[in-house]
Amino acid sequence: MVTGTLYGVGVGPGAPDLVTLRAARLIGGAAVIAYPTLAGGDSFARSIVAGMIPAGAEEIRIDVPMTEARAPAQAAYDDGAARIAERLEAGADVVCLCEGDPLFYGSFMYLMARLAAGYRVEVVPGVASPAACAAAARRPLAARNEGLAVIPATLPEEALEARIGAVESAVVMKLGRHLGKVRRVTDRLGLTGRAVYVARASLPDEVVCPLAEAPAIAPYFSMVLVTRGDDPWL
Amino acid sequence: MVTGTLYGVGVGPGAPDLVTLRAARLIGGAAVIAYPTLAGGDSFARSIVAGMIPAGAEEIRIDVPMTEARAPAQAAYDDGAARIAERLEAGADVVCLCEGDPLFYGSFMYLMARLAAGYRVEVVPGVASPAACAAAARRPLAARNEGLAVIPATLPEEALEARIGAVESAVVMKLGRHLGKVRRVTDRLGLTGRAVYVARASLPDEVVCPLAEAPAIAPYFSMVLVTRGDDPWL
Repeated sequence: MVTGTLYGVGVGPGAPDLVTLRAARLIGGAAVIAYPTLAGGDSFARSIVAGMIPAGAEEIRIDVPMTEARAPAQAAYDDGAARIAERLEAGADVVCLCEGDPLFYGSFMYLMARLAAGYRVEVVPGVASPAACAAAARRPLAARNEGLAVIPATLPEEALEARIGAVESAVVMKLGRHLGKVRRVTDRLGLTGRAVYVARASLPDEVVCPLAEAPAIAPYFSMVLVTRGDDPWL
Repeated sequence: MVTGTLYGVGVGPGAPDLVTLRAARLIGGAAVIAYPTLAGGDSFARSIVAGMIPAGAEEIRIDVPMTEARAPAQAAYDDGAARIAERLEAGADVVCLCEGDPLFYGSFMYLMARLAAGYRVEVVPGVASPAACAAAARRPLAARNEGLAVIPATLPEEALEARIGAVESAVVMKLGRHLGKVRRVTDRLGLTGRAVYVARASLPDEVVCPLAEAPAIAPYFSMVLVTRGDDPWL
């Protein structure tokens, strides 16, 4: 029997109509759907495309424990990959749902690393959150010969300052309780005035505001854009 | 009369089915479509969605001259914005087509800068080329707490080396005749072995190969990914 194909499918930032035609076709025709969930919660990726999943589709939930240690998550991916492999061996295609783009901070990479040697893997790129946040804020991410840095807010304050200060345009992700630190850094760099905070881009409760007016603690789906803005001569 | 809305619509990296559902709906219902063309050539963005454009749609071509000087391009955007404004004033919506994502190195930002103060502007984010290249190469762009730098190959060699050497994961764009320089830099940094060259991602003539095997001169739609690869312990 021919083995199935594993599809890593980006479903975009949140609005169901920001899914690509290819992703919608694959999801709409899927016999087996897989997705990670964090600490037993719901899957945001699944919620985006809930209306497109066929009624009879089998669902493989990969519950990833929320721990600092790597081993429990690795064991969860091992187990998830084994369950996916079982369906691929039986000749079924498996559509793995991924928020945003599968290979941009996505957990699909852990499944791909375990399965790519043995099975056909196809990745369907999706609309990533920086593009969605730039659209929400109507600010160019990068123009002409500017560099763009995607920077995790989890970095130490000095590293954050060095990276934001060294680049024309920056996207600061993974904010959470690090937002105050980001704000101190942009204050010192004199960049707070051109920094925008965006949360839940493309969703009904989207927030766009100057960084100076951002809440003290940010939700997971949020970022700060430190970009040139709308200079027509960029 | 109520003025129309300007939509900046990302049409993705090249494959027509990597257009989002929202973009397809807007294009399929458009009375007026606008797009820039470079030096009188065809529009790649238009070619991606040619099959979705309604038969009777009016098309506004904005021909941008290819010059080093900024003024001729600025004049072309002034003129294009004026023609778009005329249609918006008449109450028509205008759908502006953009390769990839409108605000990621897209020329839509020049039109938006000219029109956002006077008219309603909505940006529809699209699948950007780094996500498409990562999908083609099946390599994670960024994992966990890694930073990702998008770097124009047009930078001087020393700046290129400093930026690529300072970050966990890099996407080097705008290659063209700069590919040899990029290769010298990754050689010196000991990174050529984990660098991948991708051209025309998602198109039928897509190329994915190790940087060491890349052609001497790269086409416009190409980039080099210098990423960690597929380490399952990332």
